[in-house]
Amino acid sequence: MSDRKEFRDLVPPAEAHRTIDSLDLEPDAETVPLEDARGRVLAERVDADVDVPGFDRASMDGYAVRARDTFGAEETDPAELEKVGEVHAGAEPDVEVGEGECAEISTGAVVPDGADAVVMVEETDETDGVVQIRKAVAPGDNVMFAGADVAAGQRAIGPGTRLTPREIGLLSALGVETVPVRGKPTVGIISTGDELVRPGESLNHARGEIYDVNSYTIATAVEEAGGDPELYPHAGDDYEEMENQLRRAAEECDLVLTSGSTSASAVDVIYRVIEDTGELLLHGVAVKPGKPMLVGRVGQSAYVGLPGYPVSALTIFRTFVAPAIREAAGLPEPRTATVTGEMAVRERYSEGRTRLMPAGLVEDEAGRTLVYPVDKGSGATTSLVEADGVVEVGPDTEYLAAGEEVEVQLFSPDVRPPRVLGVGEDDPALSRVLDRVQNPRYLPFGTREGLRRLRDGVPDVAVAAGPLERDVDSVELGAWTREWGLVVPEGNPEGIDGLATLVDRDLRFVNRGTASGMRRSLDAALDVLADEREATRRDLEGEIDGYGLTVKAHESPARKVLAGDADAGLGLRATAEKLGLGFVPVGEETVRVLANPERMEKAGVADLDAALADVDEILAELPGYGDGAE
Amino acid sequence: MSDRKEFRDLVPPAEAHRTIDSLDLEPDAETVPLEDARGRVLAERVDADVDVPGFDRASMDGYAVRARDTFGAEETDPAELEKVGEVHAGAEPDVEVGEGECAEISTGAVVPDGADAVVMVEETDETDGVVQIRKAVAPGDNVMFAGADVAAGQRAIGPGTRLTPREIGLLSALGVETVPVRGKPTVGIISTGDELVRPGESLNHARGEIYDVNSYTIATAVEEAGGDPELYPHAGDDYEEMENQLRRAAEECDLVLTSGSTSASAVDVIYRVIEDTGELLLHGVAVKPGKPMLVGRVGQSAYVGLPGYPVSALTIFRTFVAPAIREAAGLPEPRTATVTGEMAVRERYSEGRTRLMPAGLVEDEAGRTLVYPVDKGSGATTSLVEADGVVEVGPDTEYLAAGEEVEVQLFSPDVRPPRVLGVGEDDPALSRVLDRVQNPRYLPFGTREGLRRLRDGVPDVAVAAGPLERDVDSVELGAWTREWGLVVPEGNPEGIDGLATLVDRDLRFVNRGTASGMRRSLDAALDVLADEREATRRDLEGEIDGYGLTVKAHESPARKVLAGDADAGLGLRATAEKLGLGFVPVGEETVRVLANPERMEKAGVADLDAALADVDEILAELPGYGDGAE
Repeated sequence: MSDRKEFRDLVPPAEAHRTIDSLDLEPDAETVPLEDARGRVLAERVDADVDVPGFDRASMDGYAVRARDTFGAEETDPAELEKVGEVHAGAEPDVEVGEGECAEISTGAVVPDGADAVVMVEETDETDGVVQIRKAVAPGDNVMFAGADVAAGQRAIGPGTRLTPREIGLLSALGVETVPVRGKPTVGIISTGDELVRPGESLNHARGEIYDVNSYTIATAVEEAGGDPELYPHAGDDYEEMENQLRRAAEECDLVLTSGSTSASAVDVIYRVIEDTGELLLHGVAVKPGKPMLVGRVGQSAYVGLPGYPVSALTIFRTFVAPAIREAAGLPEPRTATVTGEMAVRERYSEGRTRLMPAGLVEDEAGRTLVYPVDKGSGATTSLVEADGVVEVGPDTEYLAAGEEVEVQLFSPDVRPPRVLGVGEDDPALSRVLDRVQNPRYLPFGTREGLRRLRDGVPDVAVAAGPLERDVDSVELGAWTREWGLVVPEGNPEGIDGLATLVDRDLRFVNRGTASGMRRSLDAALDVLADEREATRRDLEGEIDGYGLTVKAHESPARKVLAGDADAGLGLRATAEKLGLGFVPVGEETVRVLANPERMEKAGVADLDAALADVDEILAELPGYGDGAE
Repeated sequence: MSDRKEFRDLVPPAEAHRTIDSLDLEPDAETVPLEDARGRVLAERVDADVDVPGFDRASMDGYAVRARDTFGAEETDPAELEKVGEVHAGAEPDVEVGEGECAEISTGAVVPDGADAVVMVEETDETDGVVQIRKAVAPGDNVMFAGADVAAGQRAIGPGTRLTPREIGLLSALGVETVPVRGKPTVGIISTGDELVRPGESLNHARGEIYDVNSYTIATAVEEAGGDPELYPHAGDDYEEMENQLRRAAEECDLVLTSGSTSASAVDVIYRVIEDTGELLLHGVAVKPGKPMLVGRVGQSAYVGLPGYPVSALTIFRTFVAPAIREAAGLPEPRTATVTGEMAVRERYSEGRTRLMPAGLVEDEAGRTLVYPVDKGSGATTSLVEADGVVEVGPDTEYLAAGEEVEVQLFSPDVRPPRVLGVGEDDPALSRVLDRVQNPRYLPFGTREGLRRLRDGVPDVAVAAGPLERDVDSVELGAWTREWGLVVPEGNPEGIDGLATLVDRDLRFVNRGTASGMRRSLDAALDVLADEREATRRDLEGEIDGYGLTVKAHESPARKVLAGDADAGLGLRATAEKLGLGFVPVGEETVRVLANPERMEKAGVADLDAALADVDEILAELPGYGDGAE
């Protein structure tokens, strides 16, 4: 353990890049069938070893002639030639063209011996085996000579060429059946952490199990960078088994990746194997979130240890590892790997080291890309789909000003800014509206956060529920009402009949957070009840067991009730019916879709507006919903 | 046959797009394992059906506590708690935290019952089972509550979302094992033409066989557009078999493509099957090269007939078919599918219909994209790799001016402009230099064409061999000499000892075209011989059988000799030795690599310059080559 501390000097990012480059991941070239060569990179030059075409080929339907027999022919004084046969494409000519003779020929057929040109059929008339030629041709006319397209011995495609459809076409023309291509580096991915379970298996919550997010995320990113990912299973808390997997991966792969283990013992295994078989080159990079990054060798394989949080793991992979995989595969950085945009908001830093800031993108009405920071290191998986990429901020940068130009390294060349960005209340009708819109992004952070961000000018729309605190400069695209109240177990066994029951009896309640519009509706109803009782709302809150227990999403309190963990939860009639629970109505609140007035001409906003025009269909399917007519 | 004529009214391109759109290629959705979902498009919304995390999770290493037990704790007055146990990630807590108690906890572990916060290990000291807490925490500190990341019931990812690594990550977090994705349209490709042979098989030149270029080209392009290509073999000239293949493909695929048959009978089969089982919706589009395009239905499948020339087939596919496949697969047009550039030269049109002009790209020193037309409908396969994409030119456009802005639809989103573009003499030393340069494009069109284009300012470099006719404004990057003469059969059976032998005896010669620098060297040598004999060069030319027989590439004459079709060919000592032939030296000529002075700062030109610095290594390996010192 004391050894490890020596490496605690964080190295600058540039040195980390150099260290990874020095690992030399390049696999041997391989040979693949032509039909599997798309997207691969040619390992060596391919020369033509045949002429294309391999024979003198008619490039028109017509008659093969000796050109000199047509000299002087014209409309009013055609040459007359005797037809001595026919030649079709794919057939060997069984005729020779002598002086004063011709042969009918189809496009692609072999020009028969004796002939040196083809007269187009449109310039001829044939009667009883005699062909009138109304236009003279020169030798070579309408003939593609052998090798005229590609000549044997010519350099056809050079090493390093990426094989797109057109190169596949040229290789086809040369009759190439298998193609020498750069190998794809094999990248082993080992999940470390006893609590990780593969998707598809079932979780034991009591043991604190969670699904393994990084393995598939990084495997997909490896594939996208041109590598060949290999997932290694890790057997529970058996460290001997883990050590075996690590050694096996190092033998089988060009590069082995692990992603941050939460368990010190797993880290110990990694150190032990590195010490036994290889070398630790770097421990910790002076970049947030790269501090825990490891680089070294395990046996003959390169090794990189990534951080554990999914966004951090993908960030470090994107920044340090993907370029090395692409380099090894011979692939250039995709042209769509970065975009330039301007900061939508001011962002302060106090790190003193390079920061890789996860960022989301949104386009303004003029099509400019705006960049806003997401995820402040929460480790949340949801940040994965909120962030489009990463902005590298230098260690001496104290802040990025709103409007400042920044470069965003996208998490994937296929990432695109959403067509429409919304923030606000979590609502099932809205979710269905979004299903009808192309490439939306909706951040269900609650009414308060939606309105705050709308004021900052970042999103295209905010969705607000419940009483609006103050005016926001916005255009209402649509509105509807939803019935809210207390979700209770089926049959309402406690006989709850409203908020008063919660105050007066000892029942377990589950609330929503203050960002939620529904929480504002609840608090407004409590104000009314407090007035009736000549008490303060705070008095009543203190009487409700669980008033302070807030959960994230609109269904979450209902699910607590469903699980038997609560007697009542704040929620919607629609949710209660969906989950087969009871419902005690308290009120009705309005949900409003409010657009940023400066984005009204944006195509995605128009899409959303169009989808909202049909919202009645959706409202009709949801119990407790009504159109917004007030 | 007469029916067919009815359809000869060419429809405008927009109508062709509409007709293809109306075919509705969309296949059924399918379900794929998460690890195969990269790049696919989600078919339906995925909601979270679990909380992430599924339990209250420690987000730091430290001690799980009841927050109120720490209230008031500070450095000088720590709270003291009794440690009652330990909880590790992936293990079920076997401890409950009561008043005045705490439990050691590792990141990711389940917060045990009774505790509501975690104190970071850095803020504590443990001695003999007593833990000193030096900093107060609030309830929830360093705990990620169940569902705080993703809550069960939340909308996670909407339909139509393309699955990149980050979405795969979120789906992993939700434990999703299989994913509902949009189906890929299955596209059957049938090669029609008796002369076509699959790459890898051997060609019978006597029968005029050529390799099938379009099948693999289009299959690759189908894959790139998000379809699933299926190649159907076509059995020789057996039309019954071809009809069977067409019917089978129509049953098995969403779309069937054929590419232009050169044989009228194959077209008849296509018509017959369309008439029997489907409907012909469109025959011929008013766009060059789309005239022969067919659109219709064969049975339940959509059908499009593409032109036969490879560049034309890929152009029509790119313009009309790829968008329909992408639409069916739910994929957006790639952001890199088009580039904007300016015309490098003036280009005239006299079509009167829309033209899809194949175009090459080159970047100028400032990184602007210049666009130049390639391939004037020659049908050459080589144009496939010379053209980067297509410029659509409206029917009323008479010309595009040099400098005019145009949009180029790239043949593949992976197409990039070459880093360096050269035109000129075909030379084996140059080919080896190019192998050491990243992404070059070299058009071996001969010295004359190279110099002409350099004067027009299009390429970065020209390569010239032989006597230079007139000065070109250029910078010489490198030069070497090569020995040229007559390539003859091994052992020189005819005892040829120079050009005089060709003039004086009845021998079969093979020449190079006038664009070639070596041809200029030959003609200069003939001038000298003519002077000696007091004749004109033209007199001597007339005496050489085959002087007018010119072939394309520098090796081509030698290969004619090798094949026994000629007694002597114009060529290089290096070629004669490579092919094991005899060589009669005539002279030495200089090969010069001449750069466009305005491109000297371009990275690709610098690469080439660097590679030329080591040309001596290459020259040493090639017989008859020397450094350019004159």
